[in-house]
Amino acid sequence: MASGDAAAAAIDGRRRQRRVTTVVRSIDLNSDLGEAYGPWRMGDDTAMLGVVTSANLACGGHAGDPETMFRTLSEAKRRGVVIGAHPGYADKEGFGRRIIRMSPGEIGRMLAAQIGALMGVAALAGAEVRYVKPHGALANLAAASDDVAKGIVGAIRAVSPDLAILAISGTALETAAREADAEVYSEIFADRSYLSNGQLAPRGRPGAVITEPQAAVSRLIDYLNSGLMPVVDGEPIALGADSVCVHGDSSGAVEMARLIHARLGEAGIAIKPFLAG
Amino acid sequence: MASGDAAAAAIDGRRRQRRVTTVVRSIDLNSDLGEAYGPWRMGDDTAMLGVVTSANLACGGHAGDPETMFRTLSEAKRRGVVIGAHPGYADKEGFGRRIIRMSPGEIGRMLAAQIGALMGVAALAGAEVRYVKPHGALANLAAASDDVAKGIVGAIRAVSPDLAILAISGTALETAAREADAEVYSEIFADRSYLSNGQLAPRGRPGAVITEPQAAVSRLIDYLNSGLMPVVDGEPIALGADSVCVHGDSSGAVEMARLIHARLGEAGIAIKPFLAG
Amino acid sequence: MASGDAAAAAIDGRRRQRRVTTVVRSIDLNSDLGEAYGPWRMGDDTAMLGVVTSANLACGGHAGDPETMFRTLSEAKRRGVVIGAHPGYADKEGFGRRIIRMSPGEIGRMLAAQIGALMGVAALAGAEVRYVKPHGALANLAAASDDVAKGIVGAIRAVSPDLAILAISGTALETAAREADAEVYSEIFADRSYLSNGQLAPRGRPGAVITEPQAAVSRLIDYLNSGLMPVVDGEPIALGADSVCVHGDSSGAVEMARLIHARLGEAGIAIKPFLAG
Amino acid sequence: MASGDAAAAAIDGRRRQRRVTTVVRSIDLNSDLGEAYGPWRMGDDTAMLGVVTSANLACGGHAGDPETMFRTLSEAKRRGVVIGAHPGYADKEGFGRRIIRMSPGEIGRMLAAQIGALMGVAALAGAEVRYVKPHGALANLAAASDDVAKGIVGAIRAVSPDLAILAISGTALETAAREADAEVYSEIFADRSYLSNGQLAPRGRPGAVITEPQAAVSRLIDYLNSGLMPVVDGEPIALGADSVCVHGDSSGAVEMARLIHARLGEAGIAIKPFLAG
Repeated sequence: MASGDAAAAAIDGRRRQRRVTTVVRSIDLNSDLGEAYGPWRMGDDTAMLGVVTSANLACGGHAGDPETMFRTLSEAKRRGVVIGAHPGYADKEGFGRRIIRMSPGEIGRMLAAQIGALMGVAALAGAEVRYVKPHGALANLAAASDDVAKGIVGAIRAVSPDLAILAISGTALETAAREADAEVYSEIFADRSYLSNGQLAPRGRPGAVITEPQAAVSRLIDYLNSGLMPVVDGEPIALGADSVCVHGDSSGAVEMARLIHARLGEAGIAIKPFLAG
Repeated sequence: MASGDAAAAAIDGRRRQRRVTTVVRSIDLNSDLGEAYGPWRMGDDTAMLGVVTSANLACGGHAGDPETMFRTLSEAKRRGVVIGAHPGYADKEGFGRRIIRMSPGEIGRMLAAQIGALMGVAALAGAEVRYVKPHGALANLAAASDDVAKGIVGAIRAVSPDLAILAISGTALETAAREADAEVYSEIFADRSYLSNGQLAPRGRPGAVITEPQAAVSRLIDYLNSGLMPVVDGEPIALGADSVCVHGDSSGAVEMARLIHARLGEAGIAIKPFLAG
Repeated sequence: MASGDAAAAAIDGRRRQRRVTTVVRSIDLNSDLGEAYGPWRMGDDTAMLGVVTSANLACGGHAGDPETMFRTLSEAKRRGVVIGAHPGYADKEGFGRRIIRMSPGEIGRMLAAQIGALMGVAALAGAEVRYVKPHGALANLAAASDDVAKGIVGAIRAVSPDLAILAISGTALETAAREADAEVYSEIFADRSYLSNGQLAPRGRPGAVITEPQAAVSRLIDYLNSGLMPVVDGEPIALGADSVCVHGDSSGAVEMARLIHARLGEAGIAIKPFLAG
Repeated sequence: MASGDAAAAAIDGRRRQRRVTTVVRSIDLNSDLGEAYGPWRMGDDTAMLGVVTSANLACGGHAGDPETMFRTLSEAKRRGVVIGAHPGYADKEGFGRRIIRMSPGEIGRMLAAQIGALMGVAALAGAEVRYVKPHGALANLAAASDDVAKGIVGAIRAVSPDLAILAISGTALETAAREADAEVYSEIFADRSYLSNGQLAPRGRPGAVITEPQAAVSRLIDYLNSGLMPVVDGEPIALGADSVCVHGDSSGAVEMARLIHARLGEAGIAIKPFLAG
């Protein structure tokens, strides 16, 4: 449709514009939350919801259950944190970190059920699910496989065309979402190193994970001020980012998140959600 | 709100009118379908979808999974069968037939997640979920407990005010739905006997289950022609019904459903959904 | 059989003797451990295994999985802690704290599968499962229902006649085990008050839970020195106990366990397992 | 150990002897049974237990639950059918047919828990678990991967050195079991074609599956009479076999099993278990 094409062109133009901006004066902080299950807790959701601007909530697949969803949705809404769905392989024992051989179609149907479940409980909590970010092994697969990325984007858009997608910057999922004219935002990690092709350096490679918090935050602020991300194998590269993922599940997660929050403030970089309130 | 009150009064008037009608010339047939799980099948969904006008589809709690939901939703849509959600206790090993001690609030949150899951997959299948009918032990509890019935009605309406409710005729769920001005329809069973208070005769009581198919169907047609239901402990009673539940999970289920379908046709009673297409 | 009768009489005599002993100079400390699941932890198993003499390990029903079982079994064996199975309702979301309607036979078969699973992994870890203590809602039901208690005792003995049973002192389970000539030991709780009939005071009753750790431990030591347990509704009663249950799942659990351990030592009461090494 | 070596040599000699025998006058029939779950049935276990001499019973991983295990164990025992454990990936939705990324150690612990569970319920049923045959995707992986095969053999022997192993003829699992001096038996499939390297022809290849029952049985009898298996890519090969796997889960399974049973009888080939009664 002509109007669709026009809209797509407009979105594309906006995106291109955003990409050439070298100075980012505001950024979103997102975290994977609501990953409790039954009697078990994971991280400190309440504390993290006081730091982040976007919350990716588990949907009962790799973690989460109706009670956890309702509690976290209600708390996120109360604090004005933007809410996203965080679906993953339906494998609690493996926490969605193990690939399970499924076709793109099967993955899409699994995601539709999980996103729908979170939306159902959100309606009960008077909250709204506004975007989707895949979890764990599924996110890794969606980053690398065009077919899986397309299956995921198609399923999300079928569930609701109003849902945005939060993808790891530079991945197949980001590309597939762009090509489908979906509203897509990209995230980077403060504690991970990059390669010159824009991919994350594999965990096995020396320097792939930045373990010293102050170093990670300084690097993040340099990136946000310059738009250039240092890489382990060459010159810094231009990299887009709408959000920084801060971990919520490990010990020390809250401290790291608070440190990022504080130092971004000192650096004059506003923290605000990638989706308007 | 005034307009709400007016609408409620109109609905109430329509209901009262329906209740005093003694000759029913059309009726809905509903069946619990989509109760497969992984590699396991339950009944013959395809055959049943050729007979019934409304299909209550499992939501992944007591039965069902994303593949089963998608397959059954797609087939129901293709055949023009009206689709309802059929949530139950999240207990596949017990098939939702065992009461699990949960508060009305917990039950409501569990239902919101299940109904949402089916709605998510329905969006993917281009189908629409239009009503909710609780399953098994949860349906029995909703029939008897005012608190649980209210919790269920509140959760359904919070998930979507457009969802109707299909309740066993004369139960606490039907009453709670009426009191909440929800759109509610009632079902009867062709193969169960009734008491003079409108409740089902307990299964243990002699004659509670009508095992001879022709006898069950004759009794059903007499009821539909007269509006009066025979009871085991007194004179026939006036009983409302918008739908007849035909079982889908046992061997012989399809034959029984087809027999009802054929004999209703011979008796000049139209079979059509309680919700307009 | 005559020899069976003789053995039973001997056991009975030993028990009676134990019951009239008013001064207990040694006691076992047991705790429910191995209650992690997938990525989720529950309490600090390693610390608790440094304090207790008997460990009740979850069997994959209410908690636990093969990795957790193996890790906890191996650590318990390394530290010389006696190992018991801690089966419960197969309901992780409810942590085995919700009664699920099952017949005594069904409960027995569920327990046999869970105890067997732990024994299978124990064989892999070179460890040995020596007793069984039911968990949560199942333990409560086994305390109150003779039929369930008998079903549980029968199942345990069928799985292996070498398995002892650890029951809450004064319950139907203890009685059923005695009547079946099973080897049975009883446990008390340091932080719970008792009634003059030997039952635990219901949690709702004022004073039912002793929240002040020092008070709980002083009371425990008084009991161990006298054999008399204070009750909330009369004179102290004689109560048998082979073990004290210390909680492992709450924050502060390790501190409480260490406090009990230290003060029992100061009071000259040895801490040793109820089953010989 | 010298005696171990001697025993191994003796076993090896016996095996070699068996291998050179070109005329097989008796064979075992095995089938995967007990694959129901909760309310769902899979195939007709009762009928199949009237045909086969060895039954591989699901252990609650890919299928099965305590009720199903008990029912099938009891029926197998009543009919004198030898019982094996049939563990698989703990993935009911995928019926154990999807590979889940796990280390050999994790696979071993999962198997120990599943085999133990079946042994626990078997004790309750007065039955005995005598061998192990992996299921589905796990069996395929154990056929191809030396590491996984060794992990599985090690776990089975740790659970109980009395457990035999039933492996697909010519696979890594068979080799690993031999090398560990485990008691191992091999199975072939009547309805599958072979390659000249002794492996099954991949399902995608034309002629890989023999769909005509009479043709499959004739081919099986020719093989049993000659010890030579036709292959799709060359001359018939010598192939060892202690058992023929007959499917139990599809429609027509019972008829196929009965046809094999009848025609083996007519051909004078005795049907008896590979493990003595």
